[in-house]
Amino acid sequence: MAFFSTPQIADMEQRYRATLINSLGGFKSVVLVGTADSNGSTNLAIFNSLFHIGANPPLCGLIFRPDTVQRHTLSNIESTGVYTINHITEDIYINAHQTGARYAKDQSEFEAVGLTPLYEESIPAPFVTESPLRFALDLREKIPIGINGTILIIGQITQIWLPDNVLQPDGFIDLEQVGTLTCSGLDSYHRTQRLARLSYPKPGSIPQKLLDFSI
Amino acid sequence: MAFFSTPQIADMEQRYRATLINSLGGFKSVVLVGTADSNGSTNLAIFNSLFHIGANPPLCGLIFRPDTVQRHTLSNIESTGVYTINHITEDIYINAHQTGARYAKDQSEFEAVGLTPLYEESIPAPFVTESPLRFALDLREKIPIGINGTILIIGQITQIWLPDNVLQPDGFIDLEQVGTLTCSGLDSYHRTQRLARLSYPKPGSIPQKLLDFSI
Repeated sequence: MAFFSTPQIADMEQRYRATLINSLGGFKSVVLVGTADSNGSTNLAIFNSLFHIGANPPLCGLIFRPDTVQRHTLSNIESTGVYTINHITEDIYINAHQTGARYAKDQSEFEAVGLTPLYEESIPAPFVTESPLRFALDLREKIPIGINGTILIIGQITQIWLPDNVLQPDGFIDLEQVGTLTCSGLDSYHRTQRLARLSYPKPGSIPQKLLDFSI
Repeated sequence: MAFFSTPQIADMEQRYRATLINSLGGFKSVVLVGTADSNGSTNLAIFNSLFHIGANPPLCGLIFRPDTVQRHTLSNIESTGVYTINHITEDIYINAHQTGARYAKDQSEFEAVGLTPLYEESIPAPFVTESPLRFALDLREKIPIGINGTILIIGQITQIWLPDNVLQPDGFIDLEQVGTLTCSGLDSYHRTQRLARLSYPKPGSIPQKLLDFSI
């Protein structure tokens, strides 16, 4: 096996280390975050650090590095208190990746990469028309992470839009039917193939594959 | 499209809401976290909230809900300051899911689910022998999230073990060659199929699919 410990990790060339460490945690959620500033100018940015914090109230977290193009997204969220999250499918993943380029503050990534803003009532931030699963959040908490200067933004989900036929009777969303992709590292995009849903684990029994739940 | 807003989300049956909100963020990392208490008694727990915080120093975050079986993992991390993260493959995902059962504090999940602890020098927490990609972390920060009582644990990666043939020249880990799975919702496991790695995005150009980088 290959082995690296703290001194070897510290000695790595910077870009090599970033690529390795970003690959290490496994497959990740990859989404587009839509925002607008107080004048309505839009911004769209790709993130692979979205994670679940709780269901009641419904909360998600996102990690921001203020020294990157993400800073426009962060300042918009702080200015309006609202942002949208939009899933990425095979049809738009190259456009989505391109939102990571360093566009000037006054250029909208929507126009630059060829995606279409969509507005819903009472949400000042743009959704992505081409995304089949979208939700809006209100900013709830901003937590500075002292150890490396990143910022954790926690939002509460206030609106959810998804295709009718992907929602199972128990609330499970069939993301393969949505067409949602996953990513690894900084630049690798993947579709998925389900092995199984498994029954709730209990001591003394073995998890069973749930019966076919497709519609 | 189906639509839900704050009042509808609040009115959902609790289990339905948990399943829906846990599905909403897209595909997730799913890993086994290995710990030991100060007497060396081992614990193993499945987590789907791992996320990247930074590469230099190399940092990952994990969200804990103290009212679940995760509390044994959290108290062990606080007691020894060390934990391991182990990727989950098709060979062990049913065993991995079963670690989520509510075993008694004095029963090791390793034995209960049929996985094998593995110790490396200077790491008091057990790795999982059956996992092909494993890393160890030192606890660096514990951040209480006031809004819902969860806890963010930040660790620094101190040891990395991975198969020789999965590491690309630029530091990218080919997780499909590792056999790493991803998950969605609370109980759905998926293998992946790469679409492409894309070139670094720059204004005015279109991301290119990187040439075949397999070994």
